[in-house]
Amino acid sequence: MKTFIAPMIANIENNELRQQLQQIIDQKTKPLGALGRLETLAVQLGMIQGTVTPKIEQPQIRVFSADHGLTKHGTSAYPSAVTAQMVYNFLQGGAAINVLARQHNIALKVVDAGVDADFAPHAQLIDYKVRHGSRDALTEPAMTTAECLAALENGMAVVKSVAGNLLIVGEMGIGNTSAASLLLARLGDIPINDCIGRGTGLDDAGLQHKASILTHVLARHREAKAPLEVLAALGGLEIAMMAGALIQAASERRILLIDGFIASSALLAAERLVPGVAQYAIFSHHSVEPGHAHLLKLLNAEPLLNMGMRLGEGSGAALAYPLLQSACAIINEMASFNDAGISGQNS
Amino acid sequence: MKTFIAPMIANIENNELRQQLQQIIDQKTKPLGALGRLETLAVQLGMIQGTVTPKIEQPQIRVFSADHGLTKHGTSAYPSAVTAQMVYNFLQGGAAINVLARQHNIALKVVDAGVDADFAPHAQLIDYKVRHGSRDALTEPAMTTAECLAALENGMAVVKSVAGNLLIVGEMGIGNTSAASLLLARLGDIPINDCIGRGTGLDDAGLQHKASILTHVLARHREAKAPLEVLAALGGLEIAMMAGALIQAASERRILLIDGFIASSALLAAERLVPGVAQYAIFSHHSVEPGHAHLLKLLNAEPLLNMGMRLGEGSGAALAYPLLQSACAIINEMASFNDAGISGQNS
Repeated sequence: MKTFIAPMIANIENNELRQQLQQIIDQKTKPLGALGRLETLAVQLGMIQGTVTPKIEQPQIRVFSADHGLTKHGTSAYPSAVTAQMVYNFLQGGAAINVLARQHNIALKVVDAGVDADFAPHAQLIDYKVRHGSRDALTEPAMTTAECLAALENGMAVVKSVAGNLLIVGEMGIGNTSAASLLLARLGDIPINDCIGRGTGLDDAGLQHKASILTHVLARHREAKAPLEVLAALGGLEIAMMAGALIQAASERRILLIDGFIASSALLAAERLVPGVAQYAIFSHHSVEPGHAHLLKLLNAEPLLNMGMRLGEGSGAALAYPLLQSACAIINEMASFNDAGISGQNS
Repeated sequence: MKTFIAPMIANIENNELRQQLQQIIDQKTKPLGALGRLETLAVQLGMIQGTVTPKIEQPQIRVFSADHGLTKHGTSAYPSAVTAQMVYNFLQGGAAINVLARQHNIALKVVDAGVDADFAPHAQLIDYKVRHGSRDALTEPAMTTAECLAALENGMAVVKSVAGNLLIVGEMGIGNTSAASLLLARLGDIPINDCIGRGTGLDDAGLQHKASILTHVLARHREAKAPLEVLAALGGLEIAMMAGALIQAASERRILLIDGFIASSALLAAERLVPGVAQYAIFSHHSVEPGHAHLLKLLNAEPLLNMGMRLGEGSGAALAYPLLQSACAIINEMASFNDAGISGQNS
């Protein structure tokens, strides 16, 4: 059987570099530690890039879109057709992620990972469709192993030829909070009720129905334990493709600026498939989707923002992006006490 | 006796406009409320500007600098001379606030409100010095009433002729966390021990000493109750000038993007002097300076960021600035469901 051939992921830990970065920051014209999280962020970025002068160049957003077989059981507040409609919205520049990408000058393309519709060619659309939506996970794996491997490889291919050193993976796929919850429940060994939420806007009855369906899905695939098996059985085409993109990007030492619940579930899958990927992750925001807190804990993540968001598309990551630019600017441009001839603390 | 002549502050509340803004946001191509705090921020900005198309133009930072008579009693970890040294650093472009202002294209000038040093003229330096540092509040009011009024009026003058519709007031003044703590204790009727912290880096003994000095200062001025009296007795030249700047800016319906502990204390003083000013405030971040939590509560504030910062200078506000731009972009640029032809929620 075909298996996943993972690229090498470099270990970023390097005590000497960490100390150098800290020393540079501590000599800047400010009280020790006064820039808080911005300082630890500058260190993280330096460690990821292996340099004392971290810098972001040609940042990229790829929005992975796909449909989900499970939605036929009414697990989402919106109809599946909205996935394709939102793809058109992305291509027309009208979605939140378009607005934020323009604001910060981040290149944006949409990847058709498996939308249940056919699109005319478009300069902003990358066709990596594996199939028209994932399978119904209530009755069979969401993807066959071959489909899951194709999605992972396509995700890697999306990143391979791309410029820049920072990647945001966004997503659009009606029903994908269910897939993310299923992955979290199995990979994190967490009760499904702690992993689910209202997605795009379920009411109480809808939420209870979702819980019941997902419980049955987990039971159907109780034997799936290995990361690739779990991803194939419970995931989605866009999530698998995001995982592939994150793996490839980490192997190239790109900064992975992680969005919310779905993107974090893709990172968890990527990390389980190829340990070390998560070292390259900066967590942008804390989503209000309830499972996200568990995901963040599993990934030892301290997100930068907590804005009560739950949109996906990469929107939380794009919103946090200027904080990374600030961290780079602080370490590269601020004067040191020596430069500025400023007195130190009273002893 | 001369008194403070306050400008008119317009009430921003307007139910019709609030509903219009909410409706516009609810029709954007995203689930209801999915952009969380970014949505409420867009509404706040629209209310402040009295429009459904809020927009930020020619944002301004003014960094108010002054020395404090109280520092002779060892209330700060750094010597008073650092205030002037940091002013030079600002003028040379090497401080954190310079870096962040450049990143976001925010105009930056330094205001000498009362530094205990004399500066040569400089294009980025505005000379509004009231005196060479405030008086020793342990033995007399930090400012005479006339000095406090002069500081307030100078602060108003700083804003009057300036372009743009968004103001950040930053500060640099060794010893000014003490002044801010004193203002908070008296204006908020809060025990001084809950209002103080380590400022730029006091150790335990230093903190205990600061508490003791500030307790004596409050006892010395126990009769000061009216806002102007309190500001004069316990405040500082830069804090009074910041209060004046905030009052003037609010009277011109500018957005007040509030930094951390010191800036929030200036806003509290401004609001007590001229009720209504705080309506124009957006709170940028939650400082780790312990008194800030109390200040935020008094001002009903929900800051945007919580990055563990305690630098001042306006740095937290500058860091949060792009979030305001994002909020404007979202309301002005995102497509509506109608524009994009997207299906609504399942009923």
